[in-house]
Amino acid sequence: MNEGSIMYSAKGMISCPVDNTFKIISKKFTILLIRNMLSNQCRFNQFLETIPGINSKTLSARLREMEKNGLIRRKVYHDPPLRVEYFLTEKGLAAKPILDQMAEYSLRHCSSVIFEDGKPRTLQEVVH
Amino acid sequence: MNEGSIMYSAKGMISCPVDNTFKIISKKFTILLIRNMLSNQCRFNQFLETIPGINSKTLSARLREMEKNGLIRRKVYHDPPLRVEYFLTEKGLAAKPILDQMAEYSLRHCSSVIFEDGKPRTLQEVVH
Repeated sequence: MNEGSIMYSAKGMISCPVDNTFKIISKKFTILLIRNMLSNQCRFNQFLETIPGINSKTLSARLREMEKNGLIRRKVYHDPPLRVEYFLTEKGLAAKPILDQMAEYSLRHCSSVIFEDGKPRTLQEVVH
Repeated sequence: MNEGSIMYSAKGMISCPVDNTFKIISKKFTILLIRNMLSNQCRFNQFLETIPGINSKTLSARLREMEKNGLIRRKVYHDPPLRVEYFLTEKGLAAKPILDQMAEYSLRHCSSVIFEDGKPRTLQEVVH
């Protein structure tokens, strides 16, 4: 860090924590996969069906990266029929406050593209 | 939204608020430009000097997009020497809680790549 007075920098810091998190979650679909896993989706085909624009190849690559980054773990059930499920690790679950703030941001500040009635809302009003 | 029980969805919602926010802030350098503006940087050359890997062309494009998305406003001072400064709008400032959570995430969960001593910290311990 040679950034001196830049927000979120401090003594003894060797890289920017905002930038580091960005590198972990900024690839297309990673945030949406975390979102879906927070809703207890765990299967490849569920992700494929509910995330618009994703395809098998990209989904496989993304899940592999997320596993490598410690965000998810892959569980294989060997009893027939063979099944694979994906779960958020503690490090993956820890991203929930980021997603909450991302949701809150658009609910409040981009409501015209989020809601039929265009009215801003808080996260608390939306999540039950 | 055809995603039914997916977290952050609700009645009367026409697009996912998490995905919408992602589209606004996920381009490379946008988050870092918001970070720097939160530290009162406002000049093109300051951004160029403190953000590793950015160049003039990309910086110009990113600032134009951020202005178009309503995150920043551009102020031109016509008295010589001509100066241009960039400021966060209310909508840009509203992204601070997202950046705070992104910082907190790496401070807690990726401390080995953030700090010389590798010890996890909270955001409160770091930001004065």
